[in-house]
Amino acid sequence: MSQFMIVHDRLRRSLGKSSVKDHIVITTDPKKGFLREFANQEGYQTLDIPPGVGGRFSVLSAVGLLPLAVTGVNVVELLKGAAAASEVSTLPTLARNPAYLFAVLTYLLKQLKKRSTLVFMPYADALTGIADWFNQLWAESLGKRYSTKGKVVFAGQTPVKAIGTTDQHSQLQLYMEGPEDKVVVFVGLKSYRVDIRIPAVFKEHEGLSYLSGQTLGELIQTEQLATAQALAQAARPNMTLTLNRITAASMGYLMYLLEVATMAAGYLYQIDPLDQPGVEMSKNYTYGLMGRPGFESYKAEFNKTLRSKKKYIV
Amino acid sequence: MSQFMIVHDRLRRSLGKSSVKDHIVITTDPKKGFLREFANQEGYQTLDIPPGVGGRFSVLSAVGLLPLAVTGVNVVELLKGAAAASEVSTLPTLARNPAYLFAVLTYLLKQLKKRSTLVFMPYADALTGIADWFNQLWAESLGKRYSTKGKVVFAGQTPVKAIGTTDQHSQLQLYMEGPEDKVVVFVGLKSYRVDIRIPAVFKEHEGLSYLSGQTLGELIQTEQLATAQALAQAARPNMTLTLNRITAASMGYLMYLLEVATMAAGYLYQIDPLDQPGVEMSKNYTYGLMGRPGFESYKAEFNKTLRSKKKYIV
Repeated sequence: MSQFMIVHDRLRRSLGKSSVKDHIVITTDPKKGFLREFANQEGYQTLDIPPGVGGRFSVLSAVGLLPLAVTGVNVVELLKGAAAASEVSTLPTLARNPAYLFAVLTYLLKQLKKRSTLVFMPYADALTGIADWFNQLWAESLGKRYSTKGKVVFAGQTPVKAIGTTDQHSQLQLYMEGPEDKVVVFVGLKSYRVDIRIPAVFKEHEGLSYLSGQTLGELIQTEQLATAQALAQAARPNMTLTLNRITAASMGYLMYLLEVATMAAGYLYQIDPLDQPGVEMSKNYTYGLMGRPGFESYKAEFNKTLRSKKKYIV
Repeated sequence: MSQFMIVHDRLRRSLGKSSVKDHIVITTDPKKGFLREFANQEGYQTLDIPPGVGGRFSVLSAVGLLPLAVTGVNVVELLKGAAAASEVSTLPTLARNPAYLFAVLTYLLKQLKKRSTLVFMPYADALTGIADWFNQLWAESLGKRYSTKGKVVFAGQTPVKAIGTTDQHSQLQLYMEGPEDKVVVFVGLKSYRVDIRIPAVFKEHEGLSYLSGQTLGELIQTEQLATAQALAQAARPNMTLTLNRITAASMGYLMYLLEVATMAAGYLYQIDPLDQPGVEMSKNYTYGLMGRPGFESYKAEFNKTLRSKKKYIV
């Protein structure tokens, strides 16, 4: 809201009050909240977020589709990919249902083998954003204090983003030899949108000549396979999701599949994957410290605790 | 090396063989390796990496200083900051030595309280790169199978990058209510290089008016304090490193401090923080699959294992 206040104010100053609404589309709840009220009063164009679809599950709604369409993504293909994933994600045979397989394997590794960390490791810089998106989905959906029956369970598996091949160099030592608490999920590509052939130079040097004539894409794919193999040799569990290439359709497929996997994992953990009660406390302290009416007690409590804190000032 | 082969070839084609060396500075070992040999033979300008300084500890050597200087960073100030950190990092009183404190607190939380994950959470987008850098330092230095006495220990603590306030929204639910296996390290700023005041708009709306007149920087700082407080209330351990602002000197200070903290943690875990034996296996498989002479057995082993792997193709 603070960002909206700043942008709205700047638009109003530059364009005049009457033109601001030509430059803003408000995507919000169809009935509730300040933005809906504001849009109705002032006559802004709006798009609805379907009720019951929380932020982390909203990418295939108007929340994600509008900015994607504006930036040139073919959202029809994206939704077709999601629809295809929807078909396989309802198959009753576990071995043929990749969403349920993902949920069951990671759940069993967590509960039976104490694999408390899920490393999500795409081998493409372009998938960095998908990794961030998945990390929120997995963390916020499954990280829960109470089971649906009210029992304290402290459920969840910590997602870690790693991007190949960069994080091979930064993290593989830990994954190979550190605590036995991880499962690594590789996301590989059969072909890259852009590729570069390594030229036949320095041929006299035996330690380099094997690279000549191969492409960077082949090298990256090989490193991915080699890393998976090395982890398996060290008895470190890992699985690989392989996409033909990065397209709107394959991204829609992947995201839908991971959303269903998250819901299925929530079912296995017996928690509610759709709520987030743990984030309220921090918001309340923020409101109190920023002076929002009704939250004074949080400010008082904060100041009281502050006095008892140790500070090491150097 | 594959990237060097590509860049070198392109420069040679564009500029001619004799001019290539005017456009390349090679930073490498003073005596060993292909690049040193190549530079000597062809007469390239070079900078030395001090022997015994591994990649993840090399940022304050020519490895980091040359690109930083070229991009306009004041590297003299950076090194002054590092020198200042060097002074406090050798103080014998634990409570006055921030590097040792960092090592001792995280070590005790890991060993006595099973906090297997260290969340490194700066509240500034500009510190994203520092978080990536620290994650390699912490993961690769401490993630070790063997102690220095040869005992299998599977040591290490998994670093996770989180950037405030973004990852409050994506990860805080997990940190508040998920497994009790984390320590959160906040990195806060007393002032931001750029700040924006939130204008006094929508005053009639009680739920927003408290934001008017405050700045985004104040809002971000408040959210950081509120998040730390909420975690503490939930008995989730956390500490805060506070910088006055982002400058070359404060970055040098922070990096040096974290390097010493990592070395001290290695001492406490009784592992060698300077080696990385676990990354060799993956390299050997890569060499084998790419056809490098001498690594044929790895390819054969890979192919043998491949046949026994289960594939779920959907």
